[in-house]
Amino acid sequence: MSELKGFLAPKTPSGSSAIVPEMPWYYSGTLLTVEYRTDVERVRAILPADLELADEDPGAVAFIWADWQSCSTGGAELLDPIRSQYLEAFVVVRCKYEGVTYSRCVAIWVTKDFAIARGWFQGYPKKLGSAHVTRIFNHGKATPKLEAGAKLGATLSAYDHRLASAVVTLRSPVDQNGFVNGHKMLHSRWMPSITPGAGNSLDQLIAMGGVDADLGQAWGGDAELVLEDSQWDELASLLPVRQIIGGYYREVGVTFNGGVLVADHSNPAV
Amino acid sequence: MSELKGFLAPKTPSGSSAIVPEMPWYYSGTLLTVEYRTDVERVRAILPADLELADEDPGAVAFIWADWQSCSTGGAELLDPIRSQYLEAFVVVRCKYEGVTYSRCVAIWVTKDFAIARGWFQGYPKKLGSAHVTRIFNHGKATPKLEAGAKLGATLSAYDHRLASAVVTLRSPVDQNGFVNGHKMLHSRWMPSITPGAGNSLDQLIAMGGVDADLGQAWGGDAELVLEDSQWDELASLLPVRQIIGGYYREVGVTFNGGVLVADHSNPAV
Amino acid sequence: MSELKGFLAPKTPSGSSAIVPEMPWYYSGTLLTVEYRTDVERVRAILPADLELADEDPGAVAFIWADWQSCSTGGAELLDPIRSQYLEAFVVVRCKYEGVTYSRCVAIWVTKDFAIARGWFQGYPKKLGSAHVTRIFNHGKATPKLEAGAKLGATLSAYDHRLASAVVTLRSPVDQNGFVNGHKMLHSRWMPSITPGAGNSLDQLIAMGGVDADLGQAWGGDAELVLEDSQWDELASLLPVRQIIGGYYREVGVTFNGGVLVADHSNPAV
Amino acid sequence: MSELKGFLAPKTPSGSSAIVPEMPWYYSGTLLTVEYRTDVERVRAILPADLELADEDPGAVAFIWADWQSCSTGGAELLDPIRSQYLEAFVVVRCKYEGVTYSRCVAIWVTKDFAIARGWFQGYPKKLGSAHVTRIFNHGKATPKLEAGAKLGATLSAYDHRLASAVVTLRSPVDQNGFVNGHKMLHSRWMPSITPGAGNSLDQLIAMGGVDADLGQAWGGDAELVLEDSQWDELASLLPVRQIIGGYYREVGVTFNGGVLVADHSNPAV
Repeated sequence: MSELKGFLAPKTPSGSSAIVPEMPWYYSGTLLTVEYRTDVERVRAILPADLELADEDPGAVAFIWADWQSCSTGGAELLDPIRSQYLEAFVVVRCKYEGVTYSRCVAIWVTKDFAIARGWFQGYPKKLGSAHVTRIFNHGKATPKLEAGAKLGATLSAYDHRLASAVVTLRSPVDQNGFVNGHKMLHSRWMPSITPGAGNSLDQLIAMGGVDADLGQAWGGDAELVLEDSQWDELASLLPVRQIIGGYYREVGVTFNGGVLVADHSNPAV
Repeated sequence: MSELKGFLAPKTPSGSSAIVPEMPWYYSGTLLTVEYRTDVERVRAILPADLELADEDPGAVAFIWADWQSCSTGGAELLDPIRSQYLEAFVVVRCKYEGVTYSRCVAIWVTKDFAIARGWFQGYPKKLGSAHVTRIFNHGKATPKLEAGAKLGATLSAYDHRLASAVVTLRSPVDQNGFVNGHKMLHSRWMPSITPGAGNSLDQLIAMGGVDADLGQAWGGDAELVLEDSQWDELASLLPVRQIIGGYYREVGVTFNGGVLVADHSNPAV
Repeated sequence: MSELKGFLAPKTPSGSSAIVPEMPWYYSGTLLTVEYRTDVERVRAILPADLELADEDPGAVAFIWADWQSCSTGGAELLDPIRSQYLEAFVVVRCKYEGVTYSRCVAIWVTKDFAIARGWFQGYPKKLGSAHVTRIFNHGKATPKLEAGAKLGATLSAYDHRLASAVVTLRSPVDQNGFVNGHKMLHSRWMPSITPGAGNSLDQLIAMGGVDADLGQAWGGDAELVLEDSQWDELASLLPVRQIIGGYYREVGVTFNGGVLVADHSNPAV
Repeated sequence: MSELKGFLAPKTPSGSSAIVPEMPWYYSGTLLTVEYRTDVERVRAILPADLELADEDPGAVAFIWADWQSCSTGGAELLDPIRSQYLEAFVVVRCKYEGVTYSRCVAIWVTKDFAIARGWFQGYPKKLGSAHVTRIFNHGKATPKLEAGAKLGATLSAYDHRLASAVVTLRSPVDQNGFVNGHKMLHSRWMPSITPGAGNSLDQLIAMGGVDADLGQAWGGDAELVLEDSQWDELASLLPVRQIIGGYYREVGVTFNGGVLVADHSNPAV
């Protein structure tokens, strides 16, 4: 009897049905980032009790749109691009745990199921959303160019509620496309017991980061950001936008190949 | 400091962002089922090694389309119906474990993210797909009626590949809408370690079933079923269709309120 | 040489590619209606100059959600239901032309391309949108029942902006599901010259109505309606909601088989 | 009383609801093209009777995927990119009319409603479809680079049937990205009378082409193309693929600002 194969569900005899294949996972794309400051207590309130605020600029938040093409080893997804391309919009804050400063994604919406599955494995709290971001083409008049004054728009909606709208106006090349998303990620992943009220069968704190970063020139500039609440997405927990720090654009390539367990509170007996 | 709330991700101060709220979960909808027999070794090959074939008719398979409206306690989802309605198509076989016969879902596609999340919690191996099934209306000429001779179609695609097409012709009221999906479900749920090659942090066998079933009259009849393979969905593992057992239609209501842990092989230290 | 076939584009040798086949077209579904009064000058402003306001209650507006299954002669669409099912949300006012009172659709969003095509032929100003409406099932707890106190929700979004949200609470059976959409439709259809500024090659006023109506019992009750503007959808032109007239639900079947030319201002020479 | 505004439907007091604003329309994007030869009688059969085959290589067909960002004057669409971006897949052949050789689009699927509307105005026989094409990014491992050996995939589906899949392998820079789509377009546009069987109220032959072409370097190479028929899309009318001519990739910018009426057979009295 042969074993079933599949990194994540479903497992089948060949393993080809798995919603996500084995790591490493490769990414090429663009990032559009708006960083802002909210009240420090807002960041504190969105962190689990056992994490601390970052020491410096603890109220800083990054709202990021990524326009990705991704694949696994061999790149088969690239030739059936519906399986390769997706957009995501996500919110990152910083935190501290056992003296180390981390980035932490507290909300994220993606456009494909394989991206949801990767995210749940990584502790990204992914849901489906509709994300769009202006692209930079090299020809024609229906595009900004990568130059001072370029304006890029980005939007997010979920369950037919528009949650976020941004416009970034590029001003000049800069060293970094923001600082909030610049640390290793510290994420929680958990699975409640199938029995109501019995606690979490899985409950872990994990840390991870990309490798093999292949980065384009970062550009920075001004930004506008409008966030709206909905019944199903508590964006108010990330408000108010007290001060815009800046807007950024960068082409990026990165590889993900796992992380490390930081703390475990699982109770597999339930 | 208040605790974060959320049954599944993301956790927020209010808990309203969670992709799925607390159980119980309520369902109203219709089921269109095609049951068929494939080669017994095909069913054996799609089961994990520690499960056995069912004693009777072990090659029987059910391909089921469900057209659901669902909600949690209080029913808020019903008034924002994009958050409530979804379709799913799923494949069920039977198996035996420690002497008990169970049903087991080996493939399933749904149209909404909250349905994916509920499924992963329940061990349903859910992915996104595009599912459609003919509806029965009471008026007009663009509908079958619930009567002998009624024809209902159903289709499934994923990643823009059409995977399944069915036509069921109703003949008469029957006692049951099939037998393959008639037992408690025995499902696996697992989460690989964030560290490549380190095994599964979570690895459980769980059992569950609906409660408070509120069933309409079952109808049975003839069926046609065409299954097609794709690079991303190994439908060939469920072929060939040796013999159609029957086609069925039924209106159903059911409540899900959890299940029980059957076996645990987790290794939370990884 | 055989002639190309196709009621609307594209024409092919067999005609099977046409986005819409020949009439008649059959519809089965449900209508959820909210009627309200806005300022009379608002209705006047959304009518072409050559139409007059209705004599009675000229500020009345109907916002209607329809959940349709449709097909052409032979019903082939019913067995591939993705080709048959769609939702639409539309806004109807009344007007008068040459002494006759008509209904007129001034905005409409649908979920499928074949519905857009039928609409453009009929003078419905159709765009794509995302529409949802609560369904009434006969079983289970995730559904209102067709009875006093039942609450049905409905929503509309386009380009990821939520444009309309409604809740209707049914109170009792009534004679009609509203009066605004109760006349023959008077619609405009036009096509600008391919040469900029040269006027309209096609410019017609047409009248039409459904035939073979097969209606369920109408229910009436209270309603809430929230309309929101977007950059791409001038909902403000239908505001304010001065007074809710009522909310209605009805199962309906109807056939469309064409209409009549009322007035022509085409200039086919351009 | 102010006049209603709107290039295409719906007309409103401000004109902002129109599914398409006034020309000119600007486009920036990429084209992936596969050219092949089918039997000459197949091309003949997909042309209207009053058009002739092209003199040279009359059996040549181009299957093209375009990945577009588009806007109108002022570029407002670019900052709400859901209103700006779309993909399309289309089939072009050549024909001759009154001694002039034209290109002609005989089938086309797009991903947005505004693109459908522009197309119907232009005589492109547009329907909705799901189109995807591999993108070329500058960084990371999940992308081909614009160099010899690069492989780009493209797919098309409609009504959940996969209709076309292509892979192009780039070999070298070339002068042109194919020749089939290189002439002015000769298109038909028509609107049947609202009265069944009464003929066409509008029936025109129009010619048009882009202006202000801003082209990147064309690349050419090998190609594979698989076309599949469906009940709703008669792809068989474009088969067999007798010989692949080549595959091409090019970044393009172009402006559309109308065309000219070539022949008119309208009957506005119906």
